[in-house]
Amino acid sequence: MKELIDLINKAHSIVILTHYSLDGDALGSSLGLALALDYIGKEVTVFLNESIPKSLEFLPGRNLISSNCDKNADLAISLDNSDLKRLGDGADIYAGAKKKINIDHHTTNSMEANSLWIDQNASATGEMVYKLIKAMGIPVSKDIAECLYTAIITDTGGFRYSNTTPDSHIISAELIKCGIPFARIAKKVFDIVSHSKMSLLKKTIQNLTLYCEGKVAVSWLLYDDIYPVNAQSDDYEGLVNVGINLEGVEVSLFIREEEPGRFKGSLRANDYVDVAKIAGKFSGGGHIRAAGFTAAGNPDDIIRRVLDEIKKEL
Amino acid sequence: MKELIDLINKAHSIVILTHYSLDGDALGSSLGLALALDYIGKEVTVFLNESIPKSLEFLPGRNLISSNCDKNADLAISLDNSDLKRLGDGADIYAGAKKKINIDHHTTNSMEANSLWIDQNASATGEMVYKLIKAMGIPVSKDIAECLYTAIITDTGGFRYSNTTPDSHIISAELIKCGIPFARIAKKVFDIVSHSKMSLLKKTIQNLTLYCEGKVAVSWLLYDDIYPVNAQSDDYEGLVNVGINLEGVEVSLFIREEEPGRFKGSLRANDYVDVAKIAGKFSGGGHIRAAGFTAAGNPDDIIRRVLDEIKKEL
Repeated sequence: MKELIDLINKAHSIVILTHYSLDGDALGSSLGLALALDYIGKEVTVFLNESIPKSLEFLPGRNLISSNCDKNADLAISLDNSDLKRLGDGADIYAGAKKKINIDHHTTNSMEANSLWIDQNASATGEMVYKLIKAMGIPVSKDIAECLYTAIITDTGGFRYSNTTPDSHIISAELIKCGIPFARIAKKVFDIVSHSKMSLLKKTIQNLTLYCEGKVAVSWLLYDDIYPVNAQSDDYEGLVNVGINLEGVEVSLFIREEEPGRFKGSLRANDYVDVAKIAGKFSGGGHIRAAGFTAAGNPDDIIRRVLDEIKKEL
Repeated sequence: MKELIDLINKAHSIVILTHYSLDGDALGSSLGLALALDYIGKEVTVFLNESIPKSLEFLPGRNLISSNCDKNADLAISLDNSDLKRLGDGADIYAGAKKKINIDHHTTNSMEANSLWIDQNASATGEMVYKLIKAMGIPVSKDIAECLYTAIITDTGGFRYSNTTPDSHIISAELIKCGIPFARIAKKVFDIVSHSKMSLLKKTIQNLTLYCEGKVAVSWLLYDDIYPVNAQSDDYEGLVNVGINLEGVEVSLFIREEEPGRFKGSLRANDYVDVAKIAGKFSGGGHIRAAGFTAAGNPDDIIRRVLDEIKKEL
């Protein structure tokens, strides 16, 4: 940490970079750190590969985002990113910087840097940025707190995922003491549903079918359901949970037709079925209670074949 | 607190009572305290007016629940309850006890007791019970931690409601250090959907209709939707949020036909509309962004009349 703070103190121009497919931890930790470095007089910019997702448009510090970042900055700080490729166009900016810092909480990290700080126990990079800002003696403003709180709730699913730690709560206690509108933030991050997602959710619930005395839930979306609503990639998030959260269900299967005749399948289990094993039968994989696969053909046939494998494990 | 601990220390037989229409804070704080008092050798029972809701059946300490509680206990402790009537059949047990303690976090409380501890700033009674157990020097076991964590997440909506305090997080940090399966608890408390609720949700989404360029969302359930699925009272919870959470919506109206021809209406607003004022036009009331009313007649007519009032406020 001392080495890292030294590098920051010696730099004047600093560029903050994060992974593409922006999420609340990537953007929240980037803007939170940028606001802190701006406060102590650094010439700091944040580089993004894409526009800000609607659900995160409320974050403060957006004025520090620049598409025209210094390609020879004194220091580049990569946040929440485990792989140079995932910096997208930011990879060149990282490469061109005189010094490099890498702060991340992922379990594998292949980034090279003058100073690396990887904490696999941190539930969010936002927690690490909080500790860094405190260690540098920079006051945590309300704006910084909003950014870091958003980072933490995103990566912990609002303190519900098993990666949540006592530190996630202790830091959040400090952040909400700054007077942030945490209830509104949670609403924006978790509750707001886009029109396209509502269409997909409606169809998913309509199609929901139970098998094996209600222990298996199956649902699907066809290309004709998805195409007309101009669905975004995050609209599919959680649709497999419609089935897994239904009372009495042990396994949920959800398939969606990405391209005509090509399906992406998601499998979830609650307590005892190994869905990674089932996904493996279709050249897929994943975790024991959350796995996925792809398959070509017609949906009835794919569902029937997966159901046959699920039945063997029930 | 000292007075309260003295009363507990002097008692041998203790009955714990809470309000009917059990929720996670009422039951979690009751079982958590019962487990702690059992640990220090008290003869403790918990009296309930009803069976445990399915979503809370996982809570430890259920062996301390008794329908045959001591009617002349040395001490009765009322938890999370603001009104003697809400103790149901427990009111007699409370009246018959030699000494009485009342611990609650509601803003109004009309209970009489030898020792009263009301903390309106506590987000859950579970937080107060945690402080009491710590002050008594009783170790917080994993079972106790599960009960109190459930209490806190219930009353804070998983740390998302505006009543959440830094203490809610600090205490939760201590509770999860006990090794409780907090992710599974959150899933049971928040995610599991009953079959009847899924039917109502499906119909609510199907009926969802937008007005005023998408600023107003309206949905409804008719008696014929509700009656066949044997809906429970908590199945309606959150159905008004289907509309209010849709992108771009400012006001959500949801009506359900409780009895043929009799409707219960819920109104929600996001940012600027005063829905208490609108509900007032129909002899209802509530808060500025969450209100309700009842109305008789046909649904189209009721919706049209409420829409007319909403339009005036947009």
